[in-house]
Amino acid sequence: MHPALEVTYHVRSDARSIEERARAIAIEQSVEMPLSAITDAFVRAEIVGQVCGIAQRSSDLFEVRIRLAGETIGSDPGQLINMLFGNTSLHRDIALHDVELPGALVTGFAGPHHGLQGLRQRVGAPTRALTCSALKPQGLSADKLAALAARFAQGGIDYVKDDHGLADQAYSGFAARVEAIAAALRGLGQPPAQATHYVPSLSGDLDTMRAQIAIARGAGVDTVMVAPMVAGLANFHRLVREHPEFAFFAHPTMAGAAIAPPLLFGKLFRMLGADAVIFPNHGGRFGYSPETCRNLAATALRDWHGLRATVPVPAGGMTRERVPEMLDFYGVDIMLLIGGALLEAGPRLVEATAGFVTQVHRYGQGGEQGG
Amino acid sequence: MHPALEVTYHVRSDARSIEERARAIAIEQSVEMPLSAITDAFVRAEIVGQVCGIAQRSSDLFEVRIRLAGETIGSDPGQLINMLFGNTSLHRDIALHDVELPGALVTGFAGPHHGLQGLRQRVGAPTRALTCSALKPQGLSADKLAALAARFAQGGIDYVKDDHGLADQAYSGFAARVEAIAAALRGLGQPPAQATHYVPSLSGDLDTMRAQIAIARGAGVDTVMVAPMVAGLANFHRLVREHPEFAFFAHPTMAGAAIAPPLLFGKLFRMLGADAVIFPNHGGRFGYSPETCRNLAATALRDWHGLRATVPVPAGGMTRERVPEMLDFYGVDIMLLIGGALLEAGPRLVEATAGFVTQVHRYGQGGEQGG
Repeated sequence: MHPALEVTYHVRSDARSIEERARAIAIEQSVEMPLSAITDAFVRAEIVGQVCGIAQRSSDLFEVRIRLAGETIGSDPGQLINMLFGNTSLHRDIALHDVELPGALVTGFAGPHHGLQGLRQRVGAPTRALTCSALKPQGLSADKLAALAARFAQGGIDYVKDDHGLADQAYSGFAARVEAIAAALRGLGQPPAQATHYVPSLSGDLDTMRAQIAIARGAGVDTVMVAPMVAGLANFHRLVREHPEFAFFAHPTMAGAAIAPPLLFGKLFRMLGADAVIFPNHGGRFGYSPETCRNLAATALRDWHGLRATVPVPAGGMTRERVPEMLDFYGVDIMLLIGGALLEAGPRLVEATAGFVTQVHRYGQGGEQGG
Repeated sequence: MHPALEVTYHVRSDARSIEERARAIAIEQSVEMPLSAITDAFVRAEIVGQVCGIAQRSSDLFEVRIRLAGETIGSDPGQLINMLFGNTSLHRDIALHDVELPGALVTGFAGPHHGLQGLRQRVGAPTRALTCSALKPQGLSADKLAALAARFAQGGIDYVKDDHGLADQAYSGFAARVEAIAAALRGLGQPPAQATHYVPSLSGDLDTMRAQIAIARGAGVDTVMVAPMVAGLANFHRLVREHPEFAFFAHPTMAGAAIAPPLLFGKLFRMLGADAVIFPNHGGRFGYSPETCRNLAATALRDWHGLRATVPVPAGGMTRERVPEMLDFYGVDIMLLIGGALLEAGPRLVEATAGFVTQVHRYGQGGEQGG
């Protein structure tokens, strides 16, 4: 038999009901029927979820640990999330907090093809933090987005990604956009080993995303962005496995607030092949705490069954003023993403980008660290 | 230009902050950058989300209405959910409550190929409520599941579906299961016009699901179940459009608690092609209120841009005792799904199923209504 998964849920409950609620989760996430009606010995012994621990975390918050059989997952990422949280996600008062996964499951999914080292290598930056910005707003034509990309590149940015709202809209269709932006960056004549890399955002169903990757490859692009919670985890993983030469940024859109970010981004997206995970940094437009962000980054980077490290990309309303603090907080095994705050520089976008880039390059070298 | 979408969010907030929060949502779900940095006239006029109403619902709950440009969606279901809720889903205190969609978007997605009328026709039941049960627990072999299916069929059930935990596991691989169950049902020699229909659950990525549909077709099966929030909305929609002869049940797993069920199941799943939507009935294992369930069913069934009606399937811990009450509550344009409570009958499963079926058939005919 497969080794088991040990899943941790956070449950808002009173102390009187928690044991019954824990048993209910164990049943819901495994056999989904009354135990009294199960006569099959294998199912009773191996498949029924088992409560293996309940701990009170605060007056009405409990941590519930449940053991699920590895056999129920097989090797499908969709079935993995279905078994971890599926029907239980419908409960307003239960969060999926963590899971200990069998090593064979983790290594079977195999993780990133490139990871931190690969993304550094692509831009000739073997040790420092990486830099990134975003092309927006949606509604701009492909040519205007290409002009923006060129200015970010002139400022020396490592990666410039599509805003996750850019899809295949009439005002900047995917093919037209990718070709215009790639051509604009090629036109700059940057040294190939340090050239700015454009990261288009994929959208649509699996076949559409495959066709978009083919367009990107044709334009000389080797890095793309996917929103795994929109694409479906199984489709995200399939794209990664089918395109080992591509690096994948994972975007958090539709990730919700009921799965702990260190688990979702640091473990699941990493295991399924995200080379970089974008997430909302604390103190920005979203409510993640410093502790959550620190755990997320540590989880994405730590030694884990031989998988490559996934680059944490804290974002969501970041500014140049926060660069030194963020590097102090996360260290340099990170990609810093500043979008809107650079675009606010308007005609001085190249200079603002260069200022950001210089801050990051000089960090830890005794040079200027402030904005 | 495309007509706009009007999206309603429910926001937990104090009265002092709500205007600022509403503006922040409008920006997050459209241009995702400071308005001061947007110089493009088209983007400022057409693409930036607009707050069109704020109403207080209770002391700390506000209803916020925001207008989004139809151009930002194109015709991709993934991009639709990305624009409706994407990054805003990361906020713990904001729910996606409803959306008014442009008629052209709705008719473009086209809805169910079969719907209520088609699912009734398949089982020769033109006017009454439909009946359904579930094959479980996972862990049983294909042969044991097939034996269960045959007993449900002998009891006269209309549809028997896989539990959503059944995927492609070693203990009952998809192909082996579908062939065994289809053969067991064929072996009963039911009159084709009233034969029990088996509904296997698809899993994996888009290609895997296509291959599973081919296996189902080969076994004479014409109805399948998909979990759209696991598969990705775009992939679900693609499967529906590629297989017009198949009927699709949508399962709620991974739907979470932050999107209002009448919107998600009654509008979005219906528009993308769900012939039936399974959802947790009030008073079962989940926390949906009677009002939510009533709205969901009414939304799935109502006249809406010419789309076929989607069958509401209230489920999640239902019993025979509740059949008359549920039919009184929902009316007969419904499919009643009782799983575990029938399986508890053990050796008397055929009789229990027949009792359930008889209750439903006799409802409204002045006959026996109780359990």
